[in-house]
Amino acid sequence: MPTLEVAYSPDLYQFYRNDDAIVVVIDVFRATSAMCTAFECGIKSMIPVEHIEQALDYKKQGFIVAAERKGEVVEGFQLGNSPFHYMDEKLKGETTVITTTNGTRAIEVSKDAHQVIIGSFLNISAICSYLVKENRDVLLLCAGWKGRYNMEDSLFAGAVVNNLLVDENSFDLSDSATSANLLFESSKGDLNNFLKTSSHRRRLGRLDLEKDIEFCLQRDFTNVIPVLENDRLVRLIQ
Amino acid sequence: MPTLEVAYSPDLYQFYRNDDAIVVVIDVFRATSAMCTAFECGIKSMIPVEHIEQALDYKKQGFIVAAERKGEVVEGFQLGNSPFHYMDEKLKGETTVITTTNGTRAIEVSKDAHQVIIGSFLNISAICSYLVKENRDVLLLCAGWKGRYNMEDSLFAGAVVNNLLVDENSFDLSDSATSANLLFESSKGDLNNFLKTSSHRRRLGRLDLEKDIEFCLQRDFTNVIPVLENDRLVRLIQ
Repeated sequence: MPTLEVAYSPDLYQFYRNDDAIVVVIDVFRATSAMCTAFECGIKSMIPVEHIEQALDYKKQGFIVAAERKGEVVEGFQLGNSPFHYMDEKLKGETTVITTTNGTRAIEVSKDAHQVIIGSFLNISAICSYLVKENRDVLLLCAGWKGRYNMEDSLFAGAVVNNLLVDENSFDLSDSATSANLLFESSKGDLNNFLKTSSHRRRLGRLDLEKDIEFCLQRDFTNVIPVLENDRLVRLIQ
Repeated sequence: MPTLEVAYSPDLYQFYRNDDAIVVVIDVFRATSAMCTAFECGIKSMIPVEHIEQALDYKKQGFIVAAERKGEVVEGFQLGNSPFHYMDEKLKGETTVITTTNGTRAIEVSKDAHQVIIGSFLNISAICSYLVKENRDVLLLCAGWKGRYNMEDSLFAGAVVNNLLVDENSFDLSDSATSANLLFESSKGDLNNFLKTSSHRRRLGRLDLEKDIEFCLQRDFTNVIPVLENDRLVRLIQ
């Protein structure tokens, strides 16, 4: 029976590392939601980088570069991590570069896994169908907030676990996966309301990002699954 | 308003570090349960050490030394981390040394906090009353299992959060604390049954430790709170 595990922080990845697993990187507010949106809107590929310096190097080479820290676009860059930044005809067919506070770090730590895919509520059904079809070990990797546990990523992980538990014998759950599932069940499907008190929501609230939050909590805006191939994200071809 | 946070692994401590906080170290199965039992049964002090080598040095100096790895007493040592090992007249008034897989590591990483105290279901009411009385920042530090999230420590953290939330304005909760509380609420008070599927429970089950598990899930076996003073645990004098 394949394993289904959740790592609540990129800093716990080392303890869950499993080179045979499909890793789903999760940064609901907002990096992985932005990535899913970008591919739905026709971007060709995205190069995730961990540090601002790397992003700057790409910018000098003429790339369109997104850089977000603490929820805001970093000065001198064209884009941040709002999904709305990626609904732009100009980006169709382009390769862009992206660095964010938490999401790109999670991609970086897990890059040697069997496969790294990008998950968000925006493509949750596509993600779940793919994981069922592949029938192999799964690690749901929450980007969290600066190394800390966060509610929205854990809740998404729980939604995936809940969906995959069609029968009791489909996956062998880690304690963290069992717990994420119970968290999701506590939310009773009302994610927006449930997340009202979460720390990141409050942080984003101060930045006036309610519109982004609502968008990021929508299910199945797209069927596209971004996947890491070498150094870049591309559309997964199934 | 003081903060109430939960770190689900000693490896996340760095992201929650708060030198003004009281840290409650939690390793329900079984290190912190054994420590609470030891003090209830009259031990004078316990020196927690992270590594087997340090434990061996103390043994050479004539100390009674407990060493546990992977749930079993390490060869060449007198004691492990079963609470029953500490119900022994011979230990009354003694200073012993202890190293365990997860619990002593959690003590080590947090030792510079304002205060480090030892929590388990065996002294949960004493812990909660003390935290309410002190009215300062609290960090509940789960020892977990080799860096990973585990169910029993998270559940205990949730039980403490639940107890401390007598009114909504008593503490400012981190996402991890909110989540632990919801986990505890999911258990509906039937801890033993709830933990039946947890990975550590299964691990300990193989070692035939059901009696230990039942003992560790008892509430309020003692009012003693072990506290770290310099290099050793002693009884907290209130």
